[in-house]
Amino acid sequence: MSTVSEVKQKALLAKQAAVLTNNVTTEQKNEALLAMASALIAHSDDIIAANHIDLENGRKNGTSKSLLDRLALNKERIEGIAEGLRQIVALEDPVGEQLEQFSRPNGLRIKQIRVPLGVIGMIYEARPNVTVDATGLCLKTGNTVVLRGGSAAIESNRKIVEVMRKALASTALPADAIQLIEDSDRASVNEMLKANGLLDVVIPRGGASLIRTVVENATVPVIETGAGICHTFVDESAQLNMAIEIALNAKVQRPSVCNSMETLLVHKQFAEKHLEALLAPLAEKVEIRGCARTLEGFTGAVPATDEDYATEYNDYILNVRIVDSLDEALAHISKFGTMHSECIVTEDEDHAAAFLQRVDAAAVYHNASTRFTDGFEFGFGAEIGISTQKLHARGPMGLPALTSSKYLIQGNGQIRQ
Amino acid sequence: MSTVSEVKQKALLAKQAAVLTNNVTTEQKNEALLAMASALIAHSDDIIAANHIDLENGRKNGTSKSLLDRLALNKERIEGIAEGLRQIVALEDPVGEQLEQFSRPNGLRIKQIRVPLGVIGMIYEARPNVTVDATGLCLKTGNTVVLRGGSAAIESNRKIVEVMRKALASTALPADAIQLIEDSDRASVNEMLKANGLLDVVIPRGGASLIRTVVENATVPVIETGAGICHTFVDESAQLNMAIEIALNAKVQRPSVCNSMETLLVHKQFAEKHLEALLAPLAEKVEIRGCARTLEGFTGAVPATDEDYATEYNDYILNVRIVDSLDEALAHISKFGTMHSECIVTEDEDHAAAFLQRVDAAAVYHNASTRFTDGFEFGFGAEIGISTQKLHARGPMGLPALTSSKYLIQGNGQIRQ
Repeated sequence: MSTVSEVKQKALLAKQAAVLTNNVTTEQKNEALLAMASALIAHSDDIIAANHIDLENGRKNGTSKSLLDRLALNKERIEGIAEGLRQIVALEDPVGEQLEQFSRPNGLRIKQIRVPLGVIGMIYEARPNVTVDATGLCLKTGNTVVLRGGSAAIESNRKIVEVMRKALASTALPADAIQLIEDSDRASVNEMLKANGLLDVVIPRGGASLIRTVVENATVPVIETGAGICHTFVDESAQLNMAIEIALNAKVQRPSVCNSMETLLVHKQFAEKHLEALLAPLAEKVEIRGCARTLEGFTGAVPATDEDYATEYNDYILNVRIVDSLDEALAHISKFGTMHSECIVTEDEDHAAAFLQRVDAAAVYHNASTRFTDGFEFGFGAEIGISTQKLHARGPMGLPALTSSKYLIQGNGQIRQ
Repeated sequence: MSTVSEVKQKALLAKQAAVLTNNVTTEQKNEALLAMASALIAHSDDIIAANHIDLENGRKNGTSKSLLDRLALNKERIEGIAEGLRQIVALEDPVGEQLEQFSRPNGLRIKQIRVPLGVIGMIYEARPNVTVDATGLCLKTGNTVVLRGGSAAIESNRKIVEVMRKALASTALPADAIQLIEDSDRASVNEMLKANGLLDVVIPRGGASLIRTVVENATVPVIETGAGICHTFVDESAQLNMAIEIALNAKVQRPSVCNSMETLLVHKQFAEKHLEALLAPLAEKVEIRGCARTLEGFTGAVPATDEDYATEYNDYILNVRIVDSLDEALAHISKFGTMHSECIVTEDEDHAAAFLQRVDAAAVYHNASTRFTDGFEFGFGAEIGISTQKLHARGPMGLPALTSSKYLIQGNGQIRQ
């Protein structure tokens, strides 16, 4: 099978299957997810064996320890992945929900209802758990899915998809609702990105370069996820202890993720009194890169550049910049932020309100850590990703983000005048 | 000013202006729209003079009569355009609307509110009314706009934009909220399509080739509008008179628009009894291209090809195909439709329900003309276009389609465990 035909053929199968998945009941979809969960556990030995091959190949190829860790599966992780499917079962099905209903003077009765998007293309890295999570979310919303995971996880993905497809055989959902692109060539990604008419949307999940590739090359609509250069602004009136706790949490609780902080902005009045107290606990855990005034007031820092302010470190590095005012903080965020998650720590309600109003980001916080930008933390029960674009969905995306809508119009012979 | 710098420079001005337009009141926005409406009428002589130059150039270049007609402005048309702005004033402002509000067990209070998209790029053909309509809709929703109209309307657009920008001088909105790309080179379009970070969305309005160019080349998110291969399916149990009226209306009331019918599907049982009666009134006004069975049963038709079924004529041509069943009609629509507007004429409620459920289109009709797919007809009061994609907005797009959302999170020191 050539690259071209694999993507086209499988996307077409997914499109045909979408006609069926669009027309099953919530109960039937839930049964399918539960069958998949049970099958994954029943076949966990096979999956672990396949995963073992990926891990061996990864070690031979010098894959980093952290990537190998994300790739690795064991009984416990497979149980966690299956549990994720069961949690999706418990979520409300958005499909069929009535969004609007109105009548027109000519007697037309118009309803707008939620419908599946259709076929969703997932492009992601070597994380086998995404293979299951994404499939569960897509099927629950009546969509079908074309998966293209990182080639370093191909053996794991092949086995997982085989198990999930077989599990569907005993359910109302067709096995073809789940498609795995096995070709490891980048051309298969490019082909997905241009599969207009077959894929309704492509969702990339992964690092900045993957997402950039997708955004720059896709003609299929994309939901951009991920990149986060997030700021915490410690205002003049902030409580010192709260500022320390929020900054520490935003930076070091899990630096590798998109909602972690990259730059700490500090009001000069606050800095004059508390800079040392604020930065000392951070400096114990991270490298601090500071503006000129930070370097004057705090000895444990190295100079920060504009390039630093524009970098998503995802690492134990923090920029610190002292600003004269709320406006200067807003200007910095507007210049360097990626519109993901931004926080103000302040006791001044007017400043808080201005910050919430004026910062153009998916999630804007007053006195809470940016680390909360997450579908589970928001109570959505699941998340396909965090949208950093403004179209369709913005911020943590739960099940409704995987739906579209259509208008149903009932008449009795109306024609347009 | 080079092409590169014109798009970048004006998009940047629009982006800076968007910070202001995001933070004005509904009343201030309405005042601005009313000022623009008055100014357009006050300067209608200047606008008509500029339009005269465009028309002269068009005639010299052999522009078709219908295109010249769409380009032409006179006092009455300018009054109509100004009235359009006043109608937008009367519409509810979606910005600031609270979409969700919930609290989390940890005490975080989360609100989701509507916000402007930011900077909207409009790419359209030589229709000066779109210059005003689009500007009014974008400003009402707190956005700024970068306009790139067809070069054949450049003198009209330059004058109209000059008048509108001057009108803003006496209002709370900055003149830079309205930007016109004057460069007639296609390179300026391509530059807009790749202006990520400056434009938040691009909306193309125009013919199929313009929209295809935009979809294929844009890295900025696009709202695809327009292409419509719409069907009417006359089922076995349809009332003859209703079927004739709906088919006639869908085809000939205004064949040039996207929601007009291109193909009439007729159930064989209905055709056996009524084909002649159904097609005769249509044949008086349009060319009929029929399937083999249509040609057998009706003498006034020429053969239809698969290419015909896949063509958006926007003209006085109609395909007619006789089908054996509802399923065959659905299969035809699935194969050739553009997911715009589809209609079933039937007295069978089960068939109607199945059609509404199973047809994957923005608007699905039972016993009414597809010509109603329109923001005004739906009661939205205005329309920036009709989305034929599934992301963000689908079908007629009113003001809410020009907004995004953001989450505002209020805490008192919460950090993530």
